[in-house]
Amino acid sequence: MNLERAGPVLCFGEVLVRLSTGPGTKFSNAAEMAVHVGGAESNVAALLAQLGHAVEMITALPNSALGDLCLSDLRRHGIGTSKLVRGEGRLGLYFFEPNGTGGRIIYDRSDSVFAAQAGEIDWLALPADARWFHLSGINLALGGKPAASALTAVAAMTNAGVPVSFDVNHRASLWDGKSEAELAAVRDIAGLADVLFASPIDISRLLGRDRPGDSADDRRAASQAAFAAFDRLQQVASTQRIFGQANQHLSARIDTREREYETNPAPLGDAIDRIGSGDAFAGAVIDGILRGRAPEQCANAGLAAAVAKHGMSGDRWIGTRQELEAFDPFRAGDVRR
Amino acid sequence: MNLERAGPVLCFGEVLVRLSTGPGTKFSNAAEMAVHVGGAESNVAALLAQLGHAVEMITALPNSALGDLCLSDLRRHGIGTSKLVRGEGRLGLYFFEPNGTGGRIIYDRSDSVFAAQAGEIDWLALPADARWFHLSGINLALGGKPAASALTAVAAMTNAGVPVSFDVNHRASLWDGKSEAELAAVRDIAGLADVLFASPIDISRLLGRDRPGDSADDRRAASQAAFAAFDRLQQVASTQRIFGQANQHLSARIDTREREYETNPAPLGDAIDRIGSGDAFAGAVIDGILRGRAPEQCANAGLAAAVAKHGMSGDRWIGTRQELEAFDPFRAGDVRR
Amino acid sequence: MNLERAGPVLCFGEVLVRLSTGPGTKFSNAAEMAVHVGGAESNVAALLAQLGHAVEMITALPNSALGDLCLSDLRRHGIGTSKLVRGEGRLGLYFFEPNGTGGRIIYDRSDSVFAAQAGEIDWLALPADARWFHLSGINLALGGKPAASALTAVAAMTNAGVPVSFDVNHRASLWDGKSEAELAAVRDIAGLADVLFASPIDISRLLGRDRPGDSADDRRAASQAAFAAFDRLQQVASTQRIFGQANQHLSARIDTREREYETNPAPLGDAIDRIGSGDAFAGAVIDGILRGRAPEQCANAGLAAAVAKHGMSGDRWIGTRQELEAFDPFRAGDVRR
Amino acid sequence: MNLERAGPVLCFGEVLVRLSTGPGTKFSNAAEMAVHVGGAESNVAALLAQLGHAVEMITALPNSALGDLCLSDLRRHGIGTSKLVRGEGRLGLYFFEPNGTGGRIIYDRSDSVFAAQAGEIDWLALPADARWFHLSGINLALGGKPAASALTAVAAMTNAGVPVSFDVNHRASLWDGKSEAELAAVRDIAGLADVLFASPIDISRLLGRDRPGDSADDRRAASQAAFAAFDRLQQVASTQRIFGQANQHLSARIDTREREYETNPAPLGDAIDRIGSGDAFAGAVIDGILRGRAPEQCANAGLAAAVAKHGMSGDRWIGTRQELEAFDPFRAGDVRR
Amino acid sequence: MNLERAGPVLCFGEVLVRLSTGPGTKFSNAAEMAVHVGGAESNVAALLAQLGHAVEMITALPNSALGDLCLSDLRRHGIGTSKLVRGEGRLGLYFFEPNGTGGRIIYDRSDSVFAAQAGEIDWLALPADARWFHLSGINLALGGKPAASALTAVAAMTNAGVPVSFDVNHRASLWDGKSEAELAAVRDIAGLADVLFASPIDISRLLGRDRPGDSADDRRAASQAAFAAFDRLQQVASTQRIFGQANQHLSARIDTREREYETNPAPLGDAIDRIGSGDAFAGAVIDGILRGRAPEQCANAGLAAAVAKHGMSGDRWIGTRQELEAFDPFRAGDVRR
Amino acid sequence: MNLERAGPVLCFGEVLVRLSTGPGTKFSNAAEMAVHVGGAESNVAALLAQLGHAVEMITALPNSALGDLCLSDLRRHGIGTSKLVRGEGRLGLYFFEPNGTGGRIIYDRSDSVFAAQAGEIDWLALPADARWFHLSGINLALGGKPAASALTAVAAMTNAGVPVSFDVNHRASLWDGKSEAELAAVRDIAGLADVLFASPIDISRLLGRDRPGDSADDRRAASQAAFAAFDRLQQVASTQRIFGQANQHLSARIDTREREYETNPAPLGDAIDRIGSGDAFAGAVIDGILRGRAPEQCANAGLAAAVAKHGMSGDRWIGTRQELEAFDPFRAGDVRR
Repeated sequence: MNLERAGPVLCFGEVLVRLSTGPGTKFSNAAEMAVHVGGAESNVAALLAQLGHAVEMITALPNSALGDLCLSDLRRHGIGTSKLVRGEGRLGLYFFEPNGTGGRIIYDRSDSVFAAQAGEIDWLALPADARWFHLSGINLALGGKPAASALTAVAAMTNAGVPVSFDVNHRASLWDGKSEAELAAVRDIAGLADVLFASPIDISRLLGRDRPGDSADDRRAASQAAFAAFDRLQQVASTQRIFGQANQHLSARIDTREREYETNPAPLGDAIDRIGSGDAFAGAVIDGILRGRAPEQCANAGLAAAVAKHGMSGDRWIGTRQELEAFDPFRAGDVRR
Repeated sequence: MNLERAGPVLCFGEVLVRLSTGPGTKFSNAAEMAVHVGGAESNVAALLAQLGHAVEMITALPNSALGDLCLSDLRRHGIGTSKLVRGEGRLGLYFFEPNGTGGRIIYDRSDSVFAAQAGEIDWLALPADARWFHLSGINLALGGKPAASALTAVAAMTNAGVPVSFDVNHRASLWDGKSEAELAAVRDIAGLADVLFASPIDISRLLGRDRPGDSADDRRAASQAAFAAFDRLQQVASTQRIFGQANQHLSARIDTREREYETNPAPLGDAIDRIGSGDAFAGAVIDGILRGRAPEQCANAGLAAAVAKHGMSGDRWIGTRQELEAFDPFRAGDVRR
Repeated sequence: MNLERAGPVLCFGEVLVRLSTGPGTKFSNAAEMAVHVGGAESNVAALLAQLGHAVEMITALPNSALGDLCLSDLRRHGIGTSKLVRGEGRLGLYFFEPNGTGGRIIYDRSDSVFAAQAGEIDWLALPADARWFHLSGINLALGGKPAASALTAVAAMTNAGVPVSFDVNHRASLWDGKSEAELAAVRDIAGLADVLFASPIDISRLLGRDRPGDSADDRRAASQAAFAAFDRLQQVASTQRIFGQANQHLSARIDTREREYETNPAPLGDAIDRIGSGDAFAGAVIDGILRGRAPEQCANAGLAAAVAKHGMSGDRWIGTRQELEAFDPFRAGDVRR
Repeated sequence: MNLERAGPVLCFGEVLVRLSTGPGTKFSNAAEMAVHVGGAESNVAALLAQLGHAVEMITALPNSALGDLCLSDLRRHGIGTSKLVRGEGRLGLYFFEPNGTGGRIIYDRSDSVFAAQAGEIDWLALPADARWFHLSGINLALGGKPAASALTAVAAMTNAGVPVSFDVNHRASLWDGKSEAELAAVRDIAGLADVLFASPIDISRLLGRDRPGDSADDRRAASQAAFAAFDRLQQVASTQRIFGQANQHLSARIDTREREYETNPAPLGDAIDRIGSGDAFAGAVIDGILRGRAPEQCANAGLAAAVAKHGMSGDRWIGTRQELEAFDPFRAGDVRR
Repeated sequence: MNLERAGPVLCFGEVLVRLSTGPGTKFSNAAEMAVHVGGAESNVAALLAQLGHAVEMITALPNSALGDLCLSDLRRHGIGTSKLVRGEGRLGLYFFEPNGTGGRIIYDRSDSVFAAQAGEIDWLALPADARWFHLSGINLALGGKPAASALTAVAAMTNAGVPVSFDVNHRASLWDGKSEAELAAVRDIAGLADVLFASPIDISRLLGRDRPGDSADDRRAASQAAFAAFDRLQQVASTQRIFGQANQHLSARIDTREREYETNPAPLGDAIDRIGSGDAFAGAVIDGILRGRAPEQCANAGLAAAVAKHGMSGDRWIGTRQELEAFDPFRAGDVRR
Repeated sequence: MNLERAGPVLCFGEVLVRLSTGPGTKFSNAAEMAVHVGGAESNVAALLAQLGHAVEMITALPNSALGDLCLSDLRRHGIGTSKLVRGEGRLGLYFFEPNGTGGRIIYDRSDSVFAAQAGEIDWLALPADARWFHLSGINLALGGKPAASALTAVAAMTNAGVPVSFDVNHRASLWDGKSEAELAAVRDIAGLADVLFASPIDISRLLGRDRPGDSADDRRAASQAAFAAFDRLQQVASTQRIFGQANQHLSARIDTREREYETNPAPLGDAIDRIGSGDAFAGAVIDGILRGRAPEQCANAGLAAAVAKHGMSGDRWIGTRQELEAFDPFRAGDVRR
C-alpha cells in the first residue's frame, strides 16, 4: 500500500438527494421533508475534504437544478468537482422516515443519470494523479453501468499502484434478486482492495461461510478468513452496533494481518440521525491510514467520527480535525464554553 | 361474544383537536402550536381502519371549518363518517405541553357540540349493521348527554348481540367532583362489556377494592375480581408503564377467565409522543380478537402498537398491517433500507 | 350531454407528489421542501368531491408508503379510491421552485407506476356506473400506456353515453419531441368530448390554425372553429391570464354553440400559489354543468374558484360550496369575522 | 375632556388568544397554528404602553397556563397587570385563516372567564387613579356581565371626570340576534364618551340613519349627527378601507365639533396581517390627544400606526415612538441601514 | 444574614442574546438560529420573579431594537427594569451549537454596552431599597468595568446589610489569560458573600487547594475550607453532573457551617437544553432561603428546578411555584391530564 | 481597460453573516432568525462565479466555526478561498428586520477580524494573476485598516494594469461622522476606477455638486461630470428605484463617455428580499463587460439580475447563466413547466 503518492483522493459513487420526514412523522402524513445530499462515497469524501485532504468526487449528475444542488453541496464541503460527469436525466433520490429508534428508507434511484452514465468516466486517465481510491459495494448492487465501471476503475487503480479501499456496504433491498455472477463482482473487488470495510457478517456472506458467532474470536476468525481469501488485503475495519435494554452502543474494530484492535462500546445516547455513521467511520479510518497512524488510532478516530455523526442531521459528519480530535465518544459531553 | 357479525366497527366518543407546543416550550412562551386530531375512541377507530376494518365514527362535530378539519382527518385514515352528527357550536379542544419526560394537558372541551348533541344519535338504528362497538369511560366522565347516550348505546348494542369493548380510560381531572351515581354508570357499562380495557388500579377503583400490589399475582387477582363482578366479561387487557432510573418500559397484559398472559417490559427509548399509546393498544387488541387471535398474540400486537405509537407525533398510530407485524418492540431497530 | 345519469364522476390521470421550496429559495440551496399531492385530474376530483359530488379517482399508485401518502390525501378530500390500481414501482414526482412572480417546475415522472400500469384499468366495466368522465391532455403527452388507456377510456365512455370533459392542459416540456401521430390523439379525444377546456391558443395549436389575436372576436372565432371541427362539443371554457404593469389579472370565458360569455378580469393580488388554478376552474365549471347552471354562472363560479386557488398553498382548491359561493373575486376581501 | 389627570390609562376588555394558520393554509389542512395574544382593548393598551404611557389592563384571565401566557404577553409590552382579575375557567380564543386578500375568523369565546367574571371588577375604586378610560363595543356585543360591567364602568368614570374613549368596533357575527335593549347600550355608552371611534356606517347604524353615501360631505354629516346626538362627544375618528383594482388603500379621518380632517389614502402594499389595524389607529389617536396634538396630527399618526400594523404579524403594533414618528405611510420604504 | 429586609432582590450582570442552531445542525450549515435571551444573573432573576418575588435587573442594555428585545424579555418574566442603564453600542451575544450529548458555545460579548457602561450604575443609591443582592463571577471574568462595578456593588451591599449571594460560575474560556490580581477579585467577593454557589472544584481553584476527590467527605472538606476562608459565608451550594454509561444524572448539595445535605442523583433523561440549569438551581435555593426553608428543602427545590430546566428550551426555567413544587425530579413523569 | 488578462476576478471586502427576522416579525419579539452570508463584494463574487468566471474572495475571516460558516458559503457558490486571511476575533454581523415594504438593518460589524486584519493582505503579490478587481465604498466607510488596504489595493491593481470596478455603495449610517479626509479616499479610488457603480446622487455627493434633478438629462449630466473628474473612468452604471402608488419599479442605466442607455422601469411585484439587488446588478454588468457586451446588453442583464434578486431570499442572486438569460424583468412570469 503506497502511501507516498501525490494527488487527490478519488471517491466513486452516486450522489443522492435524501428527503426525510421530521422525527415522529410518517410518510403518509408528511407536510414537509428535509433535504440533504448524501451517498456513501460522497460522505467519505466530505469527511476527508473537511480534514484537509484534496478529494475529487467521481460521479455523474444531471444537468438540472437538482444536479446543481448536489454540486453546491459537494463544493461547500471542499470536495473537488472538476472530474465529475453531467448529463440529461433524473437524480437518484431516497426517502427517509425516522422514528424514535431507527427508521426506514425508500429508494427511488432507478434510471438515474448515474445509473445511465457511470460508464462515461475515463478511468484510464484518472490514476496518474490519484493518491487513493475509495468506493462501496452499492455501485455493484446497482448493477449495469455502475457495476461495470466500478470493476474497470479498481483494475485501473491497482494497475497504477493506487491504494484502494472498499466498503462492502451491504443493503439487502439493493441486492435482492441479484445473480451469482453479480455477487461475484463484490469478491473480485474485495480481492483487489488494500482496505476492506466489512463486518464479520459481511465477510461471511462474501466468502460463503456460516454466519459468525458473537465473540471477539469469531470476529478475528472472520477477518483472518478475509486475509486468506484476498491477497492484497492489508486491513479490515468495521463498526458493531450493540442493542441493549435502553440505549444502543457502538464499537469499532480493525484487523491487520498481524494484529487486531477493538474499542470498548460507546453509548449512542439520543441519536439524532444514524445515517452515514459507517461512512464517517470509513473516512476517519482512511484519514488515519493516509497519515500513517496505527490501527488503534484509526479505530479510535473512526469510532469518534461515527458516534459524533449520530448527533448530526444529514448524511455527513460535519466538522474540523480539531473537533474530531477533541471528541471523546465515551464521555457524553457537557456544554463546552 | 359473536365474532361472525357483518358491518362496520362502531366507535363512539368525542373527536378533539389537540394544540401542542413544541418539545421544551412552555405554554407561556409558545409562538406556535401543532394541530392534531384526536380523541380516544377515534384513535382506536383510526388504527382499526388502517388495518383494513370497516369502521364508522359515531360522534357529533360542529358545522364549522374546525369541524371540517376533524372530518378530513377521519377520512384520511379511512374512517367512515356517514353516521356522525353535525351541529352549531364549538369544537372540544385540548392543549398539550410536552417536556423531556412527560408533559401536561389542559382540557377545553366544555360546552362542545359533542357535549350538547351526543343525545341526537339514533342508537336503535345502528346495531342492525354493526360488527363491534367500542367506547371509553371519557363519555361517562363528561356526564350529561354523552354519559346518557353511552348508557343507551351499550344497552342497545348488547340487546342486539353486538360485542362491546370498554376502555375505562380514567382521568382524574375529568372525574373530580363526580357523584357516586355518576361513578356507578362506569360499573354499569363494565357489566355489559365483553372486553374491558382496565389496569388493576382501574379495576380496584371500580370495584371499591384496595389499591392492588405490584406482583403478577395481584394483577391476576384484580382481573379475577372483574370477572367475578361482571358476568359478560370475556377479556381484561391493559398496559403497565414502568419507571426506572433512565428509560421507561412498557408491558402489556391480557386476562381471560381461564388464562393470563403478560409480556416482558419493552424499553420506550426516546419517546416522541406518549399520547394515544393506550388507544393504539386497545385498537390492536380488538383487531386481534376480531381475527380470532389468541390472547398472547393480541397482547404482543397491542404492545407493538403502543410502543410504536411512542415514536409518532400526534394522537394516533399511523401505519399498515405489514408495519405492525414487522415491528419488534424489544429491539430498538436499525434503519431499514 | 346526458346530465341525468347516476353514479360517481370519474377522473382519470396520474396522482403526483409535488416537492416545493419555500418562496425565494432556489433548489440549489433548499434545506426543506413542502409536500403536496397533486395531478391535474385529481385536483378537479378534489374540488368536485368537496362540493358534494360522488367522485372516483381512476389512477395507478405504487404499493409503497408514498402511494399510501397519495391515498390518504385523496381520502381526506372525500374522493373515492375503490377503483384505483396499485402496483410495484415508483411514484411520479415534480419539483417546484416558486419565486415572487411565478416559478419553475422540474418533472420527475418517468417510469412511474402510472406510466407502467395505466393500461390495467378495466375501462369497459366503469361506464355502467358513471355520471361524468374527466381527463386531461397530460395523459396523452405521457404517451405509451397512459395515452392508449385514455383513448380506450373516452371511447368506452362515449359509447355508454357518459358525458366527457377534456382539459387540453398543454405543457410544452411534456410535448417536446412528440410525433404527429401522438398529437393526433389529442384531436381524437377533443372530437369525442362534450366539454373542452382549451384556450384560443390551445385550439389553434390543435387545429393547425394561426395563433389567434387578442380581441374577444378572435376568441369567439377560435371557439367556433372548435365547434366546427368537433361534432359532439357543447362547451369550450378557458381562463386568460393578463399581465400588466403591477398585478396580474385573470378572466374566464365560456362558449357554447349559441352564446359566449366572458367575465371581467379579476385582480390576482398577492398570489400564494398559482398551480392548480386551471383545475379549480375546470372543476367549478363541471359542477355548474352538472347542476344545470347557465354558462354565465359556470364561468363566474369557475373564475371564483381559480382566483381563490391563487390564495391557497398546494395544488388544490380547498373549501366548501358555501365558501365558493361567498367568494367574490372582484373584491379583495376584508377579514370576515 | 380633562387631560391633566394623573394615573394610568385604563383599558377594559377581553384578552384573547388567536390561533392562526399560515398564509394559504385552510383550517381543514392546518398542521400548525401561530399563537398571538390579542383583544381589541389590549391592542390599544399595548400601543400606548410602548409609547411610554402608564397603562393598566382591566380584564379577567383564567388561573391556568393559558392565562399565564396572556399575562406574560401583557407584561412584555409594558402593560400593567396589577388590577386584573383571575378565576377558574376557560380562555377566550379565536381562530384566524388568512388568505391572499383577507381571511376569516371563527370565534370561540363563549363561557370564558372574562364572560363569567367581568362583573367582579371594582369599578368604584378605579377612577381615583385613572388618566383615561378606553373600551370597545365588543364588551356590549358579548352581553351579560361584560356588557353590564361596561355600563357600570363608563358611568363611574364619567362621574369621576375621567375622559372616556369608545371604539364601536362593530362585528356582525357578535351582534346577530341581539335585542334592541342590547343595542341601546351602545348608544348609552356613546352618549358618555369624549372620543368615539366609529365610521360613518357605524354612526348611521347607531343612530338608525340611512347608510351614508361615499362623499366627504356624507362623512361630515354622519359625524355631525353624532355630535348632535351625544352631548359629551368631542371627537369622532375612523379609518376607511378603499378597495381598488390592485392594492387596497387606507385613509383616516377625525372630526371635532368645529373641524374635520381626512388624510389621503395610503397604499397598503403587501399586507402581512390586517388584524388590529383599527386598534393601532385608536391607540395612536388617543396618544395624540393625551399629548395635546391637533386632530390633523392625531389622524396622521393614527394612519401611520394603522398602515405600519399591516406589515406586522399578530394583533398588535410593535415599536417605539421613534419608529412611529419616522414611518411615512405614503412612501413604501426602502431598506433603512 | 438579614432576611427581614424589604425591597426587591437585585441581580447584577449582563443580559445576552443567545443564537442557537437546531439540534444536530452545525454552525457551518445553519440556515436559521433560535433567539433566546439569557445571562446567568437574569436567569436567576427570572426564576425569582416567576415565584413571586419583586426583582430588579441591574444591567446595561443598548439603545437599539436588540436592547428592546432584551427589555421585553425581562418584562415578560415580571422582572423590574426601572433601574437598568441604556446606552449606545452593541449587545453581547453568544452562539450555541447543541448536539445529542452537549454542545459548544462561541461568545461574542466583547465591547458590549454592558462592558462599556457597567460603571455607570449608582451603587450607593441601590441598597436602601434592596432585599437581596445576587451576582456571578462572570462579571469578574469580563474584567474592566463589569469587574470594578461588581466589587463596588458588593462592598456597598454588605455595608448596608443586604445579604449577598455569589455564583462563581467558572468558565475556562472567559478566564484564560487573566492575571492573579483579577483572580483575587473572585476571592474578595466570595469573602463578602453570605451564600456561595460553588462546586468543590470551584472552591479548590479559588483557594489554591488540590482538586478534590470524588467522595462526599471530600465535598464536605471543600465546603469547610470555604467556611474557614470566608468569614461571612453561611451556605455553600452546588450541583454535580454525573456521567455514566447511558444517561447523565444530577445531584445537588448544600453545606452550612453546621450541616451538610446532598440529594440522590436524579436521571436527566432526554435533555432538551442544558444551559441555565445552574442558574435555575441558584434561583430556587435563594427562594428557599428568602422563605426561611431548611437547607434540605432548598437543595431539593434547587434540584427540581435544575432538572426541570433540562426539559425547557432557552436559558431560563419557566413556570410557577405550583409547578416547581409539583415536579419530582426522581420520577420521569407521565402525562398529567 | 484591458479585457485580455488571464487569472481570476478578485473581489475585496468584508464577508458578513446576516441574521434576519421573518416577514412581519419585529426584533423585539423574534423567536428565530434566518442566517445568510452576505457582504457587498462577496455578493458580486457569487454572481460572477455562478456565471462561470474564476473568482477569488480577498477578505479576512475569523478562525472560528462562524468563519467556517462563511467559508462553506463562499465555496458552495464556487468562489475561490485560497487567498483569504484568517485570524482570531469576531465575525461582522448585521441584523435585518423586514416588513411589507422595506425594513431596517442594525450593523454589528465593529472590531471584526476584517476590521483588524484587512491590512494583512499582500496586495503586491495579487495583481500578477488577476483579471479584474472589484471593491465597494464600504471598505472606505469602515475606515482604519480596511480603508487603507483598499487604497493600497487599487494602486497596486492599476499599476499592474488590472481593470478596477468600484461600487460607491453609500450607506448613511456607516458614513456618519466621517472626516473630509476620509471622504476624499472615495474620490481617490473613483479616480482610479475603470467602471464606477454610482447613482447620480452618489456622483453629486462625491463631487460636491447639488443634488441632481429627476430627468434623464440630469442623470446624463451627473455621469458626464464623473467622466470629467475621473480620467480613467470608462463606464458609470446604476439602478434607480421608483416609488409609486402601489408597486415599486426599478430601472437601470449605463453611461460611457460616448453614449448613454437607460432601461424602462420594470415592476418589482411582491419583493421577497431587496438586499443585494445592487450587487447582483454590478455583477451582471461586470460579466457583460468581461464578455465584451455593449452597454445596452450590460444594462439589460444587470436589470434582470437585480429584479430577479428581489424574488430570492438572502443577499445573493442564485442561478445559472441560462436562467439569467431567460429572465425577462418586464414580464411577471407564469410558472415554467
